Amino acid sequence: MCAQRKHDREFVRTFFTSPTAVEGEDDSAKMLRRASQLRGMESPDVWVPDNEDATAPSMRDEGAENIVDVVSEEGAEFPGEIHPRIVWHRDDPSTRYQGFQHMLQIADPEKGAVEHVDGFVVPEVGDIDDWKKADEFFTIVETEHGLEEGSLTMSVIIESGQAELALGDLREEMGKPTNNLERLFLLVDGEVDYTKDMRAMTPTGELPPWPELRHNTSRGASAAGLIAVDGPYDDIRDIEGYHERMTDNQAKGMLGIWALTPNQVVEANTSPLPPKTGSWLLEVDGRDVELREADGRYIYDGDELELEETGDEEYRLHADGTERELDADELHEELLERTAYVPSMNDIVDSMEEFEAAKEAGRGAIAMEQSATVVISGTEVEVTRDRMWDEATYQAAQTPITLFQDVYENRSDQHEELEEMYGEEVVERAMQVG
Amino acid sequence: MCAQRKHDREFVRTFFTSPTAVEGEDDSAKMLRRASQLRGMESPDVWVPDNEDATAPSMRDEGAENIVDVVSEEGAEFPGEIHPRIVWHRDDPSTRYQGFQHMLQIADPEKGAVEHVDGFVVPEVGDIDDWKKADEFFTIVETEHGLEEGSLTMSVIIESGQAELALGDLREEMGKPTNNLERLFLLVDGEVDYTKDMRAMTPTGELPPWPELRHNTSRGASAAGLIAVDGPYDDIRDIEGYHERMTDNQAKGMLGIWALTPNQVVEANTSPLPPKTGSWLLEVDGRDVELREADGRYIYDGDELELEETGDEEYRLHADGTERELDADELHEELLERTAYVPSMNDIVDSMEEFEAAKEAGRGAIAMEQSATVVISGTEVEVTRDRMWDEATYQAAQTPITLFQDVYENRSDQHEELEEMYGEEVVERAMQVG
Amino acid sequence: MCAQRKHDREFVRTFFTSPTAVEGEDDSAKMLRRASQLRGMESPDVWVPDNEDATAPSMRDEGAENIVDVVSEEGAEFPGEIHPRIVWHRDDPSTRYQGFQHMLQIADPEKGAVEHVDGFVVPEVGDIDDWKKADEFFTIVETEHGLEEGSLTMSVIIESGQAELALGDLREEMGKPTNNLERLFLLVDGEVDYTKDMRAMTPTGELPPWPELRHNTSRGASAAGLIAVDGPYDDIRDIEGYHERMTDNQAKGMLGIWALTPNQVVEANTSPLPPKTGSWLLEVDGRDVELREADGRYIYDGDELELEETGDEEYRLHADGTERELDADELHEELLERTAYVPSMNDIVDSMEEFEAAKEAGRGAIAMEQSATVVISGTEVEVTRDRMWDEATYQAAQTPITLFQDVYENRSDQHEELEEMYGEEVVERAMQVG
Repeated sequence: MCAQRKHDREFVRTFFTSPTAVEGEDDSAKMLRRASQLRGMESPDVWVPDNEDATAPSMRDEGAENIVDVVSEEGAEFPGEIHPRIVWHRDDPSTRYQGFQHMLQIADPEKGAVEHVDGFVVPEVGDIDDWKKADEFFTIVETEHGLEEGSLTMSVIIESGQAELALGDLREEMGKPTNNLERLFLLVDGEVDYTKDMRAMTPTGELPPWPELRHNTSRGASAAGLIAVDGPYDDIRDIEGYHERMTDNQAKGMLGIWALTPNQVVEANTSPLPPKTGSWLLEVDGRDVELREADGRYIYDGDELELEETGDEEYRLHADGTERELDADELHEELLERTAYVPSMNDIVDSMEEFEAAKEAGRGAIAMEQSATVVISGTEVEVTRDRMWDEATYQAAQTPITLFQDVYENRSDQHEELEEMYGEEVVERAMQVG
Repeated sequence: MCAQRKHDREFVRTFFTSPTAVEGEDDSAKMLRRASQLRGMESPDVWVPDNEDATAPSMRDEGAENIVDVVSEEGAEFPGEIHPRIVWHRDDPSTRYQGFQHMLQIADPEKGAVEHVDGFVVPEVGDIDDWKKADEFFTIVETEHGLEEGSLTMSVIIESGQAELALGDLREEMGKPTNNLERLFLLVDGEVDYTKDMRAMTPTGELPPWPELRHNTSRGASAAGLIAVDGPYDDIRDIEGYHERMTDNQAKGMLGIWALTPNQVVEANTSPLPPKTGSWLLEVDGRDVELREADGRYIYDGDELELEETGDEEYRLHADGTERELDADELHEELLERTAYVPSMNDIVDSMEEFEAAKEAGRGAIAMEQSATVVISGTEVEVTRDRMWDEATYQAAQTPITLFQDVYENRSDQHEELEEMYGEEVVERAMQVG
Repeated sequence: MCAQRKHDREFVRTFFTSPTAVEGEDDSAKMLRRASQLRGMESPDVWVPDNEDATAPSMRDEGAENIVDVVSEEGAEFPGEIHPRIVWHRDDPSTRYQGFQHMLQIADPEKGAVEHVDGFVVPEVGDIDDWKKADEFFTIVETEHGLEEGSLTMSVIIESGQAELALGDLREEMGKPTNNLERLFLLVDGEVDYTKDMRAMTPTGELPPWPELRHNTSRGASAAGLIAVDGPYDDIRDIEGYHERMTDNQAKGMLGIWALTPNQVVEANTSPLPPKTGSWLLEVDGRDVELREADGRYIYDGDELELEETGDEEYRLHADGTERELDADELHEELLERTAYVPSMNDIVDSMEEFEAAKEAGRGAIAMEQSATVVISGTEVEVTRDRMWDEATYQAAQTPITLFQDVYENRSDQHEELEEMYGEEVVERAMQVG
């Protein structure tokens, strides 16, 4: 059987948590209510009224009530999916029972919230048998409330070594007759508690990067037809760091990330979409520097790479601490290795259309060309890259487009912003291609 | 069931091996005897009389006798745990039988050593069924000698791909009725033989870094309630490299490491403990440089970052090959991203106490502030960082403190050195917090 | 049971694919025929007539016929092994059935090709049960054609998350009575389709590095006695990048790689073999720079490291943005850390012979010394490194030699080139050692 995704959304860019009850406010549900009003790029693909860590333990019963109140009132209009997080702990039966009770309460159809609730998020899961305990509670909740078995999705937070190991069992366990694990939806990493569970530490107290955890989560999602989401990025002022983390995640197939603020939601909703305009990168001293575009030329503003034309088609390049004399061909070769092009949405759609036409005409591979005038310490050089596109390139390039299409189909509240960003014509073509 | 640690020590910083019998010496047990005298920071958490690789094959029968002699005489006074390494090989039954015989001999209560022996170390294990063969020999040794079943711990050296895979089976296998795998204690990587088993090679012959192996070992330890220990660091003169390796390990949750010399023991016993004094780091060209403290200011002595005050609250910063004009706010933002603070033991205890008091007072999160005057090319700038502490931050910060407490409780021979290092008052507060 | 390799070759450096049928040529088998003529370093260890991605879907029936034609004519003379790739897909039964039919056809003994065919390559496999479906077709093909059961090897392309997970099951599954998975030979990564399956993306469209996949493939090979091979390196003009990838793979125990052109075959056949001459590396700014040899001295030509003799045995070193005053000992220490020696084939054989002699004489460990005059900004310094060799070092150093021996034994067509490269005497000693 193919590892098919079984739920409405094939991609989830954003997982936004809100406290369910805040003490000392006139309306303890204020944060929930505010989040429920978010629209457009500020509104997440998955909104998580968080009755666990974001809410004080003493406020969680009130939090469950708040979820019911706010979701029953605002849920119909909310553009994303709604997945409350309940309490759970692999090592504590009373916490598990409390989570069960909150689910029972929130899912009661008479209270009017459950029709807008897509599923629940279960934190602190342990090994696969612990996941099954949670799944069993979902099944009982569904049966008690006359909901279809499996209709509530289950998303889990991976925040222990044993849960990471369970990621390898999902594909095999999901088909078994005595569970409803097909309800699984998101696999979300929770690096703060994971770090604690692994007893890891860093000199400055910042979180370790955990590349293997993220790989294994993404692989687990791939093998079981689920969606991988990275954990919270605490330093909410560090937009650049958040972007770097998302780029790193995307190279692992983890296209979604937790968001703690509407600002982070905007960044995370936008990050996996192709950029509006293409750009050129130049590798300098092991780093990729984005070149500044001016009048159609791409300019390197730094001083770590120096280029001088010493004669007719003769050049001197100073880089990485050495000076080399190069002729025009050698220089072009060198710049080919150092430059890279980041295609825009329009570029990707163009290339896909071109390849589709070529395939129609019976050709299996075509060369796509990209040129630019690059300027290094005042010296201009023409760089031309070409890349062979075959069926495999085409299919790999499709991921951002399929994501875009999934977003466009499910998030009509973002149409205006997307059309503003890309232009209507590009959006239309992007919806047709593939 | 919780993955609880079942043994006396919750943390092991140091795994120190000694040859059991050296040819050509008056007393072939000389090295053993000398190691058994080590006290304080020079003495390891786990001492391993090594009757495998450190001892010539022809000397191993004598080595087993030496273990009995030295441990029965010196074991009562030895401050750490004692875990002799016996011979074993997944591919060789006669080696396995030899290891069994040596265990039988060493564990004979009439010889007076076993009361000081905490367990045995089994090298070159294979898949999980091979681990079970070793476990069965432990059980037989215990039964034959009237020891309690499971009283001898078993530690293994992970030095093959199949043993790495077995790390994923431990949690499930340890509960089964036909084995006593609950005796497992340390999971120790052995990168030299692992490299050979994986048929890996590097141009210079140095060992590959094997980050995935170390992750998987640490994760296996987390999932099964065991302790992860890294393998030997051969270049015993390269203290800096040893430290970098330990820092890298700690970020993976692997807090212990092999030590080949008493000097390495000192380094490895100290490394996972918080430093006596805090320090500031500055990121320069992708590297973290520790700033030099002088009169309460923190000075960058290099020339790769240049800062100049060009006017009232106006600055010019040269970094990463580009020059930028920044106002005071932009500069502070830039330095916030580039600096990091490494807290001292005292800082950590302070923060934990402060958070505990806040929690008592009903607050779930508080901001901790850290300020410094940073000096770059003569220009002084004030940097203030604050960090939100919530329950999760608190618990993650606890790892080094829990480790410290485990050390202090189990290693009274190190009290004096620890008190000298941190001061009595800090030690006392560190023992109370958490 | 030991994870023993069960096939003729213990190492495979090169996996070279050729389209089986190209449209619009006079002879659609032209590419196949040309590849079958390759000899010496241009000829791969494993040649893969590729009836899957390299061949248009409409040409694959003709491709199967071409394989039969060319292999029956040229197979007897071909110096490497021959493993055609058939079509397969975990999600598509009709593709699987087509692959089965092509195998039946190619393996028909009356057609004269199968006696030269060593096995088949199965792409796009899924979980372990999908591997068993392919294995069952091999068994039926063998039985129908009167071939010995298990005589055709099966190699798979790992290009999905589920197949990556199956790598952890191989050791356990290969012994089971209802399959013939012992026929497994190569585990080959296919990063293009893997990237698609994992839904990963990068800004520039280049492939992610997938270090964990490559580790897991290599570990799977180690645990099950198989051979790990990396996927295609698309940028066929980028020889330096191809080399870096191979060096990275070798440190993971993945000694083989896909080759798309005879030029890549030469590079990949050569890369895992020790170099003809040794060289010295100097670490500068985090990178390893190869020093230029001139008159027995090793010269650093860059300007990022500066060294000046300021007095009698007193030096000033400028590095990493700081200047330090060092005496002769400190400088030697510093250079020891910054330099590394890449041994030649001759060096490795020398060391092994020396260690073997020492072992014979009853010594378990000896020091190997390496000296050089290093020149930095005109200042000459003598650097002497020594390294302890014990049994473990010896065995780890053996991997490239064992590989060389496997090559020399199986590839007589490369003898001349190997002898030209190393000299006859070194080749002879390399064949004796170990």
